[in-house]
Amino acid sequence: MSKKIILDCDPGHDDAVAILLAVGNPNIDLLGVTTVGGNQSLDKVTYNARAVLEKAHATDVSVHAGCDRPLVRKQEVAASIHGETGLDGVELPEPSRPLEAGHAVNWIIDTIMSNEPGTITLVPTGPLTNIAMAARMEPRIVERVKEVVLMGGGYHVGNWSAVAEFNIKVDPEAAHIVFNEAWPITMVGLDLTHQALCTPEVQQRIEGVGTDLAKFVSGLMDFFRKTYQDNQDFIDPPVHDPCTVAYLIDPSVMTTRRCPVDVEIHGDLTLGMTVADLRGPEPSAEECHTQVAVKLDFNKFWDLVTDAIKTIG
Amino acid sequence: MSKKIILDCDPGHDDAVAILLAVGNPNIDLLGVTTVGGNQSLDKVTYNARAVLEKAHATDVSVHAGCDRPLVRKQEVAASIHGETGLDGVELPEPSRPLEAGHAVNWIIDTIMSNEPGTITLVPTGPLTNIAMAARMEPRIVERVKEVVLMGGGYHVGNWSAVAEFNIKVDPEAAHIVFNEAWPITMVGLDLTHQALCTPEVQQRIEGVGTDLAKFVSGLMDFFRKTYQDNQDFIDPPVHDPCTVAYLIDPSVMTTRRCPVDVEIHGDLTLGMTVADLRGPEPSAEECHTQVAVKLDFNKFWDLVTDAIKTIG
Amino acid sequence: MSKKIILDCDPGHDDAVAILLAVGNPNIDLLGVTTVGGNQSLDKVTYNARAVLEKAHATDVSVHAGCDRPLVRKQEVAASIHGETGLDGVELPEPSRPLEAGHAVNWIIDTIMSNEPGTITLVPTGPLTNIAMAARMEPRIVERVKEVVLMGGGYHVGNWSAVAEFNIKVDPEAAHIVFNEAWPITMVGLDLTHQALCTPEVQQRIEGVGTDLAKFVSGLMDFFRKTYQDNQDFIDPPVHDPCTVAYLIDPSVMTTRRCPVDVEIHGDLTLGMTVADLRGPEPSAEECHTQVAVKLDFNKFWDLVTDAIKTIG
Amino acid sequence: MSKKIILDCDPGHDDAVAILLAVGNPNIDLLGVTTVGGNQSLDKVTYNARAVLEKAHATDVSVHAGCDRPLVRKQEVAASIHGETGLDGVELPEPSRPLEAGHAVNWIIDTIMSNEPGTITLVPTGPLTNIAMAARMEPRIVERVKEVVLMGGGYHVGNWSAVAEFNIKVDPEAAHIVFNEAWPITMVGLDLTHQALCTPEVQQRIEGVGTDLAKFVSGLMDFFRKTYQDNQDFIDPPVHDPCTVAYLIDPSVMTTRRCPVDVEIHGDLTLGMTVADLRGPEPSAEECHTQVAVKLDFNKFWDLVTDAIKTIG
Repeated sequence: MSKKIILDCDPGHDDAVAILLAVGNPNIDLLGVTTVGGNQSLDKVTYNARAVLEKAHATDVSVHAGCDRPLVRKQEVAASIHGETGLDGVELPEPSRPLEAGHAVNWIIDTIMSNEPGTITLVPTGPLTNIAMAARMEPRIVERVKEVVLMGGGYHVGNWSAVAEFNIKVDPEAAHIVFNEAWPITMVGLDLTHQALCTPEVQQRIEGVGTDLAKFVSGLMDFFRKTYQDNQDFIDPPVHDPCTVAYLIDPSVMTTRRCPVDVEIHGDLTLGMTVADLRGPEPSAEECHTQVAVKLDFNKFWDLVTDAIKTIG
Repeated sequence: MSKKIILDCDPGHDDAVAILLAVGNPNIDLLGVTTVGGNQSLDKVTYNARAVLEKAHATDVSVHAGCDRPLVRKQEVAASIHGETGLDGVELPEPSRPLEAGHAVNWIIDTIMSNEPGTITLVPTGPLTNIAMAARMEPRIVERVKEVVLMGGGYHVGNWSAVAEFNIKVDPEAAHIVFNEAWPITMVGLDLTHQALCTPEVQQRIEGVGTDLAKFVSGLMDFFRKTYQDNQDFIDPPVHDPCTVAYLIDPSVMTTRRCPVDVEIHGDLTLGMTVADLRGPEPSAEECHTQVAVKLDFNKFWDLVTDAIKTIG
Repeated sequence: MSKKIILDCDPGHDDAVAILLAVGNPNIDLLGVTTVGGNQSLDKVTYNARAVLEKAHATDVSVHAGCDRPLVRKQEVAASIHGETGLDGVELPEPSRPLEAGHAVNWIIDTIMSNEPGTITLVPTGPLTNIAMAARMEPRIVERVKEVVLMGGGYHVGNWSAVAEFNIKVDPEAAHIVFNEAWPITMVGLDLTHQALCTPEVQQRIEGVGTDLAKFVSGLMDFFRKTYQDNQDFIDPPVHDPCTVAYLIDPSVMTTRRCPVDVEIHGDLTLGMTVADLRGPEPSAEECHTQVAVKLDFNKFWDLVTDAIKTIG
Repeated sequence: MSKKIILDCDPGHDDAVAILLAVGNPNIDLLGVTTVGGNQSLDKVTYNARAVLEKAHATDVSVHAGCDRPLVRKQEVAASIHGETGLDGVELPEPSRPLEAGHAVNWIIDTIMSNEPGTITLVPTGPLTNIAMAARMEPRIVERVKEVVLMGGGYHVGNWSAVAEFNIKVDPEAAHIVFNEAWPITMVGLDLTHQALCTPEVQQRIEGVGTDLAKFVSGLMDFFRKTYQDNQDFIDPPVHDPCTVAYLIDPSVMTTRRCPVDVEIHGDLTLGMTVADLRGPEPSAEECHTQVAVKLDFNKFWDLVTDAIKTIG
């Protein structure tokens, strides 16, 4: 049976790949895409989400725009990584399906409350503003959600500061809200996603699919490689966001470690750090509602991505 | 012409008087009452709001329940001041009008967006959670609102810590959001409201109205006096919340001072302090969107309250 | 019997007046002057202290240089108020007495430990770095000191931020240490010292003394008036530091209010604020080791200063 | 040529082993031992330092007591690990050499200033209070010290919180001072010292030396094993402090990684964390004055310790 997910994202090159993986894999039932200001402004990422779905022939998937800025802090975007449009480096099709009218936060709440309890998985791959807002507006969603599998944070790795990751650092209060609610959370952080490198071999395999979409993805990777080389001292770009979807398709794509995780909202050097307590023996799921992703099965991951691109055609 | 207001409150003894003043004064057009967890839990204060409106024969006024807890922090209520029900000390009528179905935050947004720009005044007298959420979900409300006249904070006075007031301290992040939006804000803080004491003479005047409602208000004041004596070293209780409504009815009921105000969200000793910068000459309204209430016209204030009780009958 | 004091200062125009008051008043026994980086660098303020003592014919008073920077933070000086030398606007005599060899912190400790308990009063008028260091190096000084009468902070007034005063703000950790030790503290803050204005009438009286020293003080006031007008929106400059010495000569020169005072070391907007808890009835000296200065007897204060200048000759 | 070191410690079971290694190895010239309140109160750890030197027949080494509490925070000791005496589990000899009269901070300053520049290495194995105080009282020591090799912190490991180590966490402001001075610092943190486990095999080798001292060390390890099992979920105790001395004897005992390190003094969850920035390529010594210890040569380390015990006899 396929998994019903809401993808809450800010495309973003790797968000785009996450959308494609969700659309192209038969085990995922993508209920809708919600957007949040993050990698770029809300307007830009919302347009990008619609265009990527258009590119993937997924006009059955609705897009809902959400919050345009972080809860408390001033907005900071990642133009150094994703360019001025948020998806620099490729040409986007004109989206044929209009943007939905309501607010993403309301749509998230309504979708969770109108589905059976325990059936909806939230997959946030941007700042956690929408998810935090939804949890505050309708606290009952917390126990109705099946689980939250999010890209963000890192227990030993940072990218937007020495110890903080972009999604969490730009809206730490939202992340604090989300991590402190009792739902099961899998944090797919930089510790894991820095293993999801799009090496030249991987990119050649993707190109080898031979479709227009494959070429589109390869174009995304070219730009992403360049900005990661220029700004983050990487050789190959880490393709963060689809790791979440891959885990939902096949949990064996990564190992995880259960541990308490909380978000620092007051530090000078550590603002937005996802503080994981890895001391002592691993707690049980009853004792601890959070787990962190540790080790990626590189080949299995890229097989899933390549297969999805093939499937979409 | 009367002023259209949304009263966002958490009754609460003084919130109840604010409702009565808004209902009973002809210059106020009370569009609806929204509620927020604060003095007591959301369920209790929502019931209280409905019951007070029932008591005031104001069944034309809708009540909309909002957020049940602060944005980021754990909830803290003021049972020491308002008792277990939030309105201890009086008997409440059964509300005949049902609670509205939607969320207060959505109703606030919809009301502002569907009215003419510059016509709606927000009057928050509890924690600023709902108002902050509304500003984040629909940023366009900020320039459509006429003004925000709120009870909370204090530039030289605290009650929930040495330098912080309850409404701001229990949800400082929400207050930070509200004070940092560009709408005109009048902060009616403890500096002002500690002048709005319900002295025995004032209470006798209210009782002298002779109605069942007057007796009800006097009962509220008896309980309020007792908890303020026991917990805050006051002789007479300060009746904070109606000062906001009084200012909207007649601005001459208080003097104000324009100055920058921001909210401390990181201090140990100063968490939730409304930091007013009173240095130098008073800025103009163009330079500064915030002002603080300074000096109350005691008699004019209590005249307004007493008249409203009379008018309701 | 005269009071034995150690003046720990960073001259500074008003520190200079404090030195003169201590030298010129018979009720004060100035055991020595210690210096601390503050209004200007340690080298400059140490030279200034020696030169002011020279000007006052007080070559019997030793000067001991102390800490050159705050405990934890980067140094920030008040050149906008005191100029590049720290005593801009006057010509200083060459000091004939050499600087003492040891460190001020050691000299403070040795002096307190070698005098009878309860006989030495500390009078800090700069950042509290030296005093904090001394309390940490030799904790026994805390119960041997008679009292600490310091210029710094403010319960309702700031100058280096909306709510913080320079001396405390530039080394908040040191101030936190000092206020949290059990010695009796009188905080002579901006609430008081902003009443000690050197009006034109006051300055004429000082000039009227007719000595070279009187002219020197008047020159200090000319410069101080100018910088306070240009940078702090004052008409007449507040002469902060001698208020401490005046209080020790004659406590009736000001009224005080006993209340808990602590220093905020973590706030964003409130860093270095002296948080006074003025709620409830005034505690006794047994309950509370801190008091704040409230109301200055303006004429009595300036009489003391003028008399000291006369006495020095 | 042997290395001149000042060992600033708070014995403490592992501090005791550090003293023995410094005394027993011919490449170390132990100029003196200074003590600081940490694992236990200053009085207790100072007595312990003297007793351990007595046990090691090292009555030529002076002991100087330093600060009895952290710079800013309230004191917290590690009785759960080191017992009520700070060296529970063994019998201590009566120290024959008296404690030196002056304060450790003054002795550290005087020793550094009276030796050739670049000849003295500071080896702090407790809270950094003394070292921070010395740097503030005499800033010139910073460029005269050869290097600082300290036990404390951790770039990926905590023990006194999820991400902070005891020595740094109990006096984070002192650590902040020390890490922000320009001297070369090698941080031997928990990442390294959790590899220095006293396994049963190691302990048997030590016992095999057959001396009274060897039995003494084994007794220390018995107690240390027990408290680490009971309180920190370890099987074998990590013997932190001597790793610093071992590195000075033979740098090949560990690998290091150069990276910026700073100390968080404001976080809620991260207070006292040593924040290491491991992003990007390793900087040069010119670019970066701090390095962290990474990988221990387990056998080489325990060889050094065992040899020292043998040498002492």
